[in-house]
Amino acid sequence: MCPHALIPYKPKNPKTRLSSVLEPEEREKFASLMLEDVLGTLKEMCCMPVIVGTELFDSEVVQVTVKDADLNQTLNEILPNTIHDVLIIMADLPLADEASLKRLVATETDMAIVPGRGGGTNVIYLKEPSKFRVNYYGASFLKHLKIAEEAGLSVEVIDSFRLHTDIDEPDDLVELLIHGKGKSRAYLEELGFTLSDVKGRVGIVRKR
Amino acid sequence: MCPHALIPYKPKNPKTRLSSVLEPEEREKFASLMLEDVLGTLKEMCCMPVIVGTELFDSEVVQVTVKDADLNQTLNEILPNTIHDVLIIMADLPLADEASLKRLVATETDMAIVPGRGGGTNVIYLKEPSKFRVNYYGASFLKHLKIAEEAGLSVEVIDSFRLHTDIDEPDDLVELLIHGKGKSRAYLEELGFTLSDVKGRVGIVRKR
Repeated sequence: MCPHALIPYKPKNPKTRLSSVLEPEEREKFASLMLEDVLGTLKEMCCMPVIVGTELFDSEVVQVTVKDADLNQTLNEILPNTIHDVLIIMADLPLADEASLKRLVATETDMAIVPGRGGGTNVIYLKEPSKFRVNYYGASFLKHLKIAEEAGLSVEVIDSFRLHTDIDEPDDLVELLIHGKGKSRAYLEELGFTLSDVKGRVGIVRKR
Repeated sequence: MCPHALIPYKPKNPKTRLSSVLEPEEREKFASLMLEDVLGTLKEMCCMPVIVGTELFDSEVVQVTVKDADLNQTLNEILPNTIHDVLIIMADLPLADEASLKRLVATETDMAIVPGRGGGTNVIYLKEPSKFRVNYYGASFLKHLKIAEEAGLSVEVIDSFRLHTDIDEPDDLVELLIHGKGKSRAYLEELGFTLSDVKGRVGIVRKR
């Protein structure tokens, strides 16, 4: 069975921590292409996607708008009224693929979760959404484990770097250039980004 | 069957990119505890570990010393003479656990590989080591895929954040504090490191 998918998304002034390498309009375009990559993967899985956005934008996908930009409040109003199983997946996960997402849906526990880089939460899969509430921002991964424990829900942590790698900072673009295959990666290349092989970790350079 | 494990390791002046947060002797201690965490996990898997070090140091584990600090050359002299299956695993992977490593050993392909953060290679599993040669440093993950292709070896890329997260930079310590359970994590806490929940990704602070 195909889970529904809730996708938080910010169309205006997104990805501010990429400001040092991308112009404002490039950040918007890049964020929208990462979303398209995620939507493409969800489509392969026959998921029914709903974008939970900070404002309406041009898309054929069903949208719920967060009036006061409080993502937690909006999601926590949706979850109690959801009887179908749900994936809550961030829009900045262009490395997400069908194999990695299927590992969440295949869990034998009540829910599955993938931590983001730096303590956040990238994906949550809930068999019974009404039993859970979200608390995003900051060290949300540890908060979500605690909420699950308090709700008596068994949890599986899915060990996936594709889903762990949210694209927030310039160094994250390296991962997209190495492991990505979708539209957001192609856009980076179009903008002139290439890998820069220096001592230590590989970096990026942009030829303008 | 239990694979042999080759573990490259640098006992003197390791982890220089952690110099901003750790004193030289702390870096040496921290590196040795990360190695112990990796060895502990390999022991659970009944692996036979061999440390490939830049110099001899105090350990009960079998050691091969790299005379001229050329890791690639040393490994490429060992591999052709190895008939047993082999894991080559870096010593800075304290999040490695039995479940993640077993995914490599269980591969149905000729080899399995885990990319490191920033384009490196964190773990390689080789069923027939004599058919492969390594080329570490820089964007070694892509180089290793190419070497495998040229050697006609089928490859599985293992999607694991626990094995993807090599601990090189201060931000990586966040991951160890959130997801680690071993001696290296306990040492960080002993040194006063805690999570710092600021806007965006979680950071670290050290109380001295």
